[in-house]
Amino acid sequence: MTRCVTIIGLGPGDDQQITPAASQALASATDVVGYITYVGRVAPRPGLTLHASDNRVEAERACQALDLAAAGGNVVIVSSGDPGVFAMAAAVLEVLEADPERWVDVDVSVLPGITAMLAAAARVGAPLGHDFCVINLSDNLKPWAVIEKRLKLAAEADFAMAFYNPRSKARPKGFEKTLQILNRSCGDNRLVIFARAVFTKQEQIKVVPLSAATADMADMHTVVLVGSSQTRLLSHKNRTFVYTPRAYED
Amino acid sequence: MTRCVTIIGLGPGDDQQITPAASQALASATDVVGYITYVGRVAPRPGLTLHASDNRVEAERACQALDLAAAGGNVVIVSSGDPGVFAMAAAVLEVLEADPERWVDVDVSVLPGITAMLAAAARVGAPLGHDFCVINLSDNLKPWAVIEKRLKLAAEADFAMAFYNPRSKARPKGFEKTLQILNRSCGDNRLVIFARAVFTKQEQIKVVPLSAATADMADMHTVVLVGSSQTRLLSHKNRTFVYTPRAYED
Repeated sequence: MTRCVTIIGLGPGDDQQITPAASQALASATDVVGYITYVGRVAPRPGLTLHASDNRVEAERACQALDLAAAGGNVVIVSSGDPGVFAMAAAVLEVLEADPERWVDVDVSVLPGITAMLAAAARVGAPLGHDFCVINLSDNLKPWAVIEKRLKLAAEADFAMAFYNPRSKARPKGFEKTLQILNRSCGDNRLVIFARAVFTKQEQIKVVPLSAATADMADMHTVVLVGSSQTRLLSHKNRTFVYTPRAYED
Repeated sequence: MTRCVTIIGLGPGDDQQITPAASQALASATDVVGYITYVGRVAPRPGLTLHASDNRVEAERACQALDLAAAGGNVVIVSSGDPGVFAMAAAVLEVLEADPERWVDVDVSVLPGITAMLAAAARVGAPLGHDFCVINLSDNLKPWAVIEKRLKLAAEADFAMAFYNPRSKARPKGFEKTLQILNRSCGDNRLVIFARAVFTKQEQIKVVPLSAATADMADMHTVVLVGSSQTRLLSHKNRTFVYTPRAYED
């Protein structure tokens, strides 16, 4: 009877980017709980029950995992990327706080993973090599006004930026508005990186100046990185690198 | 003759947090180049030459690695954490851009790693579970005024914050000034996490309200996380969790 929930990240999509600690958690699990796409990345084996659930049911999924653990399970919740960045770790702690008595015997722990922005950054060089900010562009759980305010202040601070969940069928307009805000605050030549399905066979990376960036370049599988005023392009051996120098010149 | 430089991250300090891709790069390397502390984490073996260098010589180290590769080596540059976050990836691309002809035959690639803030966040729960920013508090390579401006705007944006290189013997005052700026912008109860040597035997984590945070709680081995206005404390089974909920309430 282990009664524990371990929340792990599977990284960006390639098993070579999953930490040994996360793999070990999976190897000793009795139950794996998660969004159907991520559970699909876990190899079935005797003694392991896979519990796949749909998108947008994070609280229910967290309850299910905690209940399975309270009943004696060694439960692993899988996120993609890192579980602490716009993923399941916060959802589990929200649910735990709302009903502490119910899971009083359950140990909860979190293991880090390679989050999408770091995977995307590595594939193009080092665009996040200087100060940056990270914004979830979905307004499902926060007012759009908060996103807009943060975008304007981030541009004023001259942060490089990483955007998660830039655009979905249910939210076709937010990323368009984001690009409009950036267009007003940053120059035409600001570099924008669209990184889709990084470290998978479907990987697609586009680097364009802000003036050529359009909303349809992003979808839910895309992480978008925007350089600071200092971010540079470098061509080397038929590759295009993007990097932000360590030094900041006014 | 491979003529390549691969820049990898060793993660926060525990071999269980090194990706298989990074381990594989080390296994096939002829040369490993890096700061002495990080090179010390690489196991010696026949056919592998270790090149340890001192702190603050990133450009020279990058040149050395590119030269070794140009001479036919399969060279790995090691950073701790993620090589793209305040580490060697940007330094290599700076050096490459400054003298492109010299290393025209060298393939350069970057592999992501578990950066300190994500490791620290996982150890306390999910403080970076909502929008956040990441600032290097060292003013060795940028004016202090830029740091100060970013801190003020980040507080106004109500980002959670992650600070790298908060304090060193050569820079005793910057983190003190940082706390003063935060004290003016955020409430007394804003949560501050001091995470030192995460995922090592020396790991030390302190969680305090901003009013109790003092500069001497940080050193060069500490990553400091500051919550947003929404970040919460949760006690569960003798553990203190810190998390930022997914939803933002005005």
